[in-house]
Amino acid sequence: MAAMKKIAIIGLGMIGSSIAHAARRGSLAKEIAGHDASADVLERAGRIGFCDTLHADIGAAVKDAQLVILCAPVGAFKDIAQAIAPHMAPGAILSDVGSVKGAVVRDVAPFVPAGVHFIPAHPIAGTEFSGPEAGFASLFDGRWAILTPVPGSDGQAVARLRAFWKGLGSQVDVMEVGHHDLVLAITSHLPHLIAYNIVGTAHDLEQVTEGEVIKYSASGFRDFTRIAASDPTMWRDIFLNNREAVLEVLGRFNQDLKALQEAVEQGNGELLFDTFTRTRAIRRAIVDIGQDTSAPNFGRKS
Amino acid sequence: MAAMKKIAIIGLGMIGSSIAHAARRGSLAKEIAGHDASADVLERAGRIGFCDTLHADIGAAVKDAQLVILCAPVGAFKDIAQAIAPHMAPGAILSDVGSVKGAVVRDVAPFVPAGVHFIPAHPIAGTEFSGPEAGFASLFDGRWAILTPVPGSDGQAVARLRAFWKGLGSQVDVMEVGHHDLVLAITSHLPHLIAYNIVGTAHDLEQVTEGEVIKYSASGFRDFTRIAASDPTMWRDIFLNNREAVLEVLGRFNQDLKALQEAVEQGNGELLFDTFTRTRAIRRAIVDIGQDTSAPNFGRKS
Repeated sequence: MAAMKKIAIIGLGMIGSSIAHAARRGSLAKEIAGHDASADVLERAGRIGFCDTLHADIGAAVKDAQLVILCAPVGAFKDIAQAIAPHMAPGAILSDVGSVKGAVVRDVAPFVPAGVHFIPAHPIAGTEFSGPEAGFASLFDGRWAILTPVPGSDGQAVARLRAFWKGLGSQVDVMEVGHHDLVLAITSHLPHLIAYNIVGTAHDLEQVTEGEVIKYSASGFRDFTRIAASDPTMWRDIFLNNREAVLEVLGRFNQDLKALQEAVEQGNGELLFDTFTRTRAIRRAIVDIGQDTSAPNFGRKS
Repeated sequence: MAAMKKIAIIGLGMIGSSIAHAARRGSLAKEIAGHDASADVLERAGRIGFCDTLHADIGAAVKDAQLVILCAPVGAFKDIAQAIAPHMAPGAILSDVGSVKGAVVRDVAPFVPAGVHFIPAHPIAGTEFSGPEAGFASLFDGRWAILTPVPGSDGQAVARLRAFWKGLGSQVDVMEVGHHDLVLAITSHLPHLIAYNIVGTAHDLEQVTEGEVIKYSASGFRDFTRIAASDPTMWRDIFLNNREAVLEVLGRFNQDLKALQEAVEQGNGELLFDTFTRTRAIRRAIVDIGQDTSAPNFGRKS
């Protein structure tokens, strides 16, 4: 794609900074402008240098930008949308990277100025680390970015945003807002809730010391702790903003767990064996399409 | 330690074969004898060549061995113990690698001949792969091996077994049988049950296709699929044989999950944030003591 004149990244954590790194790698913009609500984060972003210009003033950041991407926790989007609305250039694209889309449309759409193309998006990528130091240029390579255009979204603007994400290294899909929130409730939100919960349970069990849990974590537990180390603010906002889908999927999880619990209680080895066999195939499929490594133990060095 | 004259490995899957590889690397035995109930596994083990002698006859495998290690699924231990009893050398150590210890003591102890030292053990190591091809010499390096001597275990024999596991690369701990089963219920059995369950739930949800679950798995779900790809027979046997501890820990997990569910229902952001903050510290502690990598995303290549 031809480089944009200016893009603005609002929120310079791990995703915002990764977009900046990857946009620079791909020469996607002549000017990468950055804003963060935290003076400390702005200062750290300046030291790393992934933006061409940094702005404490959010209006100055988005001014004349052809693409504005909200990378803050979704709980802050409503205020941000209100703050940037008067400063956005006509014809610009307003997008985001939030992990929920229904709530983002609810909070942002009312403030989008006429002539601005609002196209929510969500890159399926990240690590357990947060902050501007955690970003890196290859984060999106081979991962999926999901665009969720709203009714009336301009086709050309969607195509431009798609090209931008391809330029960042992503594969791009388009999905309906509500379906996105259900898919992500399964693939992301439930796994995070469960991981946070299991790590919390282990933390609280008084018959076994925390030292023992940590020491013997390589027996399975440690895998969950990676996800449970994710950013608390981001995840609080996700659960507050995708309540319905999360509760629906959690209900199914609880039903299934009840069946496994009964199998353990009743010594039903056949049901256990069948369940444990079925789940193997999914791992294989994920590795086969390149969404995880085939190396044992994720190829860990330790 | 001085090399033993002969050790016998009963069951040549990923753990049995890794013991053989590591014992050879450490020159821990002059003869590494192997047995497996499956002719196919024996044949594959022969092709790889990690044992010095292979025996379809289990009695021949353990004859004259100074150390016999049961590496089969724990559900097979009772039959194995009966089969090897008449052939074991006086003064030999009989040990195992089972993930549960109470049931192993229950199933094996009654058949241990006088003069044989029965010392159950459990190395906290493994990958999601199984079979003789999955083993490798460095599997135990820096991981913990837990010995659970039974009342009357000979101190010198325990010291010899400890030296053997150190020779394989492990750190060694000693623990009471029942405490082991509770600790492992938390650090290993519950995580596996939950991982199997969440992958099964995703598999069954009909509003979202399996293709979507697989495609967008990098958003969290894929981490669970690694564990849920573990050996079904081994895990069936674990849940059938550590029922009480697993159900106790699962009860706590369910209680805690109920509280998180209510927080989502009621929009209690404070409780969510507090829980998600607490769990970060545990990840850090695990990385700090070298039981996991500090690299983002487990240092995955894809």
